Amino acid sequence: MSGLFITFEGGDGVGKSTQVRLLADYLAEQGHTVVTTREPGGTELGQEIRNIVLHHRGEIAPRAEALLYAADRAHHISTLVRPSLERGEVVLQDRYFDSSVAYQGAGRVLDGDEIRNISMWATGDLFPDLTILLDLDPAAARVRLDAADKVFDRLENEEQEFHSRVREGFLALAAAEPQRWLVLDASAPRDEIAAAIQARVGSLR
Amino acid sequence: MSGLFITFEGGDGVGKSTQVRLLADYLAEQGHTVVTTREPGGTELGQEIRNIVLHHRGEIAPRAEALLYAADRAHHISTLVRPSLERGEVVLQDRYFDSSVAYQGAGRVLDGDEIRNISMWATGDLFPDLTILLDLDPAAARVRLDAADKVFDRLENEEQEFHSRVREGFLALAAAEPQRWLVLDASAPRDEIAAAIQARVGSLR
Repeated sequence: MSGLFITFEGGDGVGKSTQVRLLADYLAEQGHTVVTTREPGGTELGQEIRNIVLHHRGEIAPRAEALLYAADRAHHISTLVRPSLERGEVVLQDRYFDSSVAYQGAGRVLDGDEIRNISMWATGDLFPDLTILLDLDPAAARVRLDAADKVFDRLENEEQEFHSRVREGFLALAAAEPQRWLVLDASAPRDEIAAAIQARVGSLR
Repeated sequence: MSGLFITFEGGDGVGKSTQVRLLADYLAEQGHTVVTTREPGGTELGQEIRNIVLHHRGEIAPRAEALLYAADRAHHISTLVRPSLERGEVVLQDRYFDSSVAYQGAGRVLDGDEIRNISMWATGDLFPDLTILLDLDPAAARVRLDAADKVFDRLENEEQEFHSRVREGFLALAAAEPQRWLVLDASAPRDEIAAAIQARVGSLR
């Protein structure tokens, strides 16, 4: 595949969607065809799945939740991401399998390696060229979310401690594959973060 | 677990729901607590997933479809089947992972062993005590479905050849694990089939 696949990871409220937009604008100005997308919910089918995962009344069995995310991912990668990469486009994606491992594996009761294996089967082993972790203390992220007056979904309502375990999960994943990850302090000014991302992306091409 | 877990397999139109009902009545008369259920769609969450799988407009990527069935299964087994079996009840289930292997593995482009592995992860390796295959030539099953004037869903609209591959898939699964399966000719009179099932179930307890 001739395209470039870049994923953005981190907890809610760290600024992923802002940085996706800034990088998309920057690369589009340079003449690249850029596709911005997200998981879960990057396709019409994914929206239906996302509605189930986030808004189902009552508990969802942990393995069922993991498999729903994997189904969304399988469809999204097969119908949107791979075709874009095969056309040589740049795909910027808000969350990918690292989120599943960090949230389900580190945050919940499931084994991270199993979660990763299911995602790998779902996607036919599609790895990002670069994964950007916007790292932020969960308390600081919560302040940002409160300021934005966003409606909290199921995950956002969970405990502070859960978000701390997710953060540690992301940092452990980044440490295990340093060549794939760029870890940035999400409390830095947004233009400074954007410049750091642009520099790293420039070095990839 | 002290309960008894019996699954019914075969194509559409072979009489699974009739035989589930007859066996449930028979076992209830004997004083057993009987739970009848089905996949996909045996729980409220499963109904939401089933709606997606059967009625989504447009194609669903094959791995996404397999993972949606696995998610339904994970939730169903965790929240309904295992608790029933732990209470010592008899669970009669219309379709289980053998259907996924036969339909997805034999019928579609995916590898049967991979489909089975995902189901095993989804269910925590819960095997039925007995699986009853109601075997019928797809042409005969189609005549029954036409006579019942049922609305055909996505799968039922697929080609005859597909249904023949599914049938062969079921027969191969039964041949590989003869101690778990009871294969019956679904063109026999329904009471004769019911009697054969009762005899086999009686020998299990």
